[in-house]
Amino acid sequence: MSFKAVVLGAAGGIGQPLSLLLKNNPLVKELALYDIVNTPGVAADLSHISTPAKVVGYLPPDDGLKKALTGADIVVIPAGVPRKPGRCSDRRDDLFKINAGIVRDLATGIATSAPKAAVLVISNPVNSTVPIVVEVFKKHGVFDPKKIFGVTTLDVVRAQTFIAEVLGDLSLASSINVPVVGGHSGVTIVPLFSQSSHALPSNYASSDLQALTTRVQFGGDEVVKAKDGAGSATLSMAYAGAEFAEKVLRALKGEKGIVAPTFVHLSSDKSGGETIKKEVGKDIDYFSAPVELGPEGVTKILSLGKLTDSEKALVEAAVPELVVSIEKGVSFIAPSKL
Amino acid sequence: MSFKAVVLGAAGGIGQPLSLLLKNNPLVKELALYDIVNTPGVAADLSHISTPAKVVGYLPPDDGLKKALTGADIVVIPAGVPRKPGRCSDRRDDLFKINAGIVRDLATGIATSAPKAAVLVISNPVNSTVPIVVEVFKKHGVFDPKKIFGVTTLDVVRAQTFIAEVLGDLSLASSINVPVVGGHSGVTIVPLFSQSSHALPSNYASSDLQALTTRVQFGGDEVVKAKDGAGSATLSMAYAGAEFAEKVLRALKGEKGIVAPTFVHLSSDKSGGETIKKEVGKDIDYFSAPVELGPEGVTKILSLGKLTDSEKALVEAAVPELVVSIEKGVSFIAPSKL
Repeated sequence: MSFKAVVLGAAGGIGQPLSLLLKNNPLVKELALYDIVNTPGVAADLSHISTPAKVVGYLPPDDGLKKALTGADIVVIPAGVPRKPGRCSDRRDDLFKINAGIVRDLATGIATSAPKAAVLVISNPVNSTVPIVVEVFKKHGVFDPKKIFGVTTLDVVRAQTFIAEVLGDLSLASSINVPVVGGHSGVTIVPLFSQSSHALPSNYASSDLQALTTRVQFGGDEVVKAKDGAGSATLSMAYAGAEFAEKVLRALKGEKGIVAPTFVHLSSDKSGGETIKKEVGKDIDYFSAPVELGPEGVTKILSLGKLTDSEKALVEAAVPELVVSIEKGVSFIAPSKL
Repeated sequence: MSFKAVVLGAAGGIGQPLSLLLKNNPLVKELALYDIVNTPGVAADLSHISTPAKVVGYLPPDDGLKKALTGADIVVIPAGVPRKPGRCSDRRDDLFKINAGIVRDLATGIATSAPKAAVLVISNPVNSTVPIVVEVFKKHGVFDPKKIFGVTTLDVVRAQTFIAEVLGDLSLASSINVPVVGGHSGVTIVPLFSQSSHALPSNYASSDLQALTTRVQFGGDEVVKAKDGAGSATLSMAYAGAEFAEKVLRALKGEKGIVAPTFVHLSSDKSGGETIKKEVGKDIDYFSAPVELGPEGVTKILSLGKLTDSEKALVEAAVPELVVSIEKGVSFIAPSKL
C-alpha cells in the first residue's frame, strides 16, 4: 500500500529538499511536483534517484495544478515567500497577503481536484493559512476537519534538540517525546517541557527554563539571523515536513497509535476539541495539540494534560494572538463574517 | 562508533541537500560545513534537526578550513561551479580551471589538516579532480591511494533507475546491482548491463541497449536541459553522494562485504589494479571499478568480470578520453611531468 504525494511549491527553498525526502520515502509511489517555475528540472533531477516513487513536474499552463493534484492522497504545501530579517510590520503584512493569496489559490485547486486528500500546510503564517484552507474548503462544500493539518513539527524538533543539548547528549534528541502546543509562531508556540519523556535537570533554573521556551518560540529567528539575508529555515523545515508527512502516511496505511502535535480545527474530534477549549479557557476554533492519526486523518485530539503554572501562563499569553491570527485567515476568505 | 564528516562546498546546490542527508545519518556524530559563504546559516538551520550530529559552519577567515577539517574521518567535496547548458568548449575549459583550482586548494587543506581522512570527490570533472587531489597529497607526502575516491554513484543510481523503468517496476530500482565502470563523464561511463542482478528483457533490442547506455552516460544532460539554465543535477547528486558516504562510513565502522563502484587510483590494491589494467588493455593509473571497502578505505579492487563485445567496445572508447582527463588533472598540479 503506497500513496500519491503532491508538493505545492516544490521548486522553492523548502520544496526542493522536502521533495527529495519524500522521494526517498518508500510509502510514496507517485510524487507530483507543482510550482510556478522550475518543476520540470527538479522532477528530472529527482526522477533519477533509485527509489520507488515516480516523479512528475507540473507548471501552471495546461491545467498543471489540476493534473498534479488528481488522485492525491496527501498534499504538502510549502509554497510562499519566506520572511526576511528586519522586516517591519508593514512588510510582514505584505508577506501575509502574498502567502494568503497563494494558499487560497492552491486550496481552491485542492478543493476542486483532490478534496479527499490529507492537506499539510507549511506556508507561513500557519496560524492563518490553515483557516484559509478551511474556509476555501467550506466554500466548496468539501470541508472535512480531519484532513487539514498545520505542520508544527519543526517546533517539536527544535524542542527535542534543545532539550538534548541541555542534557549534553544529542543522540537522545529524536527519542525525546515532548508536546508543543498552541500555534506555530512566536508566543503562540507553547512547549510543555514538564511532560517531556526526558526531564530537564532537577536543578534547572526557572530563568533557564524561560530562556529555553523562548528559544523554541523564536528558533526561526536564530536561523534568519545566521542566514543574514539569505533566507529562513529551509532544510530543517523540509526535515520536519517530511517527518510529519511520514506519520500521516503510516496512519493512512493503517498503523495504529501514531501521535503528533499539529494545528487542527477543533471540530475534527468534537469531544477532544471541547476538552481543549476548556483547557485553554476560550471557545477557540483551532489549536495545536497532540493528535492521534488514523486512516481518516485526525482520530483523536488528546488533552493538553497537566500543565505547570508557567505553562498555563504561556497558554494564556498564546490565546489572544492565536485568536487574531485565526480571524485574519478566516476573514481573508469570508470577510462577511466580520 | 560514529564519525566526523566534513562537507567542503556545503552551501551550494549539492552541498545543502547533501549536508541534510548526512545530518540524518546516525553514523555521523559531528558535521562540519565549509564554504566561502553562507555556512553559518546552513549550519544553524541543520543544527535544529533532532538527529545525533553536532553541526558547525565554517568560513575562510580565522583558519576556518583547518578548523572544519581537524579530526575528520570523512571529507566530501561537492565544491565548485556547475556546468550550464550550451557551454562551448572554451567555457568548459574555464569551468575546468575554476573547479581544478578550488579542488587543489581544498586538497591542500585536507593534506595539511586531515591527511588520514577518507576523501570523496564529487566536484566535476571527477576524472580530473581525483588526480588533482592525489597529486596534491603526493606533494605533501601524505598520499594513501586507499583513501581517495571519485564518487561515481550517480551513474549507478541512474543505471538502476533506468533498468527498473524498462522492467516497468520502479520499486525494484534500489535492489538492482549493476556495475558502472570506467570514469564519470560521457563516454567514459560504462554501464555493464550484462552483469545486472536484474536482466533486461531477453528480447531487448541492441539499439535499445545502446540508447540505454547513452542515457546513463549522458543522464546529466537530461537534467541540465530540463532545468533550462537553472543548473544541473543537485538533489540526485546529493542522494548519490550520501549513499556512497554511508557505505564508506559503514566500512570504516568495520562492516564487511561492502562493494561499490568508485573512481580510484589503481595502486590502492596492487593485484586488483593490475587485473584492471590487463582488462582495459592499458597501463592506466585510475579507473572506476567495483571496490570492496574496509576500515582502511579500499580493501580490494574487483575484476570487471566477463564483458560482452559491446561492453568491451565501450571500455575501448572510454580509455583514450580517460587518459586525457587524468593527465589534465595530473599536469594541473605537476606540470613538470609533461
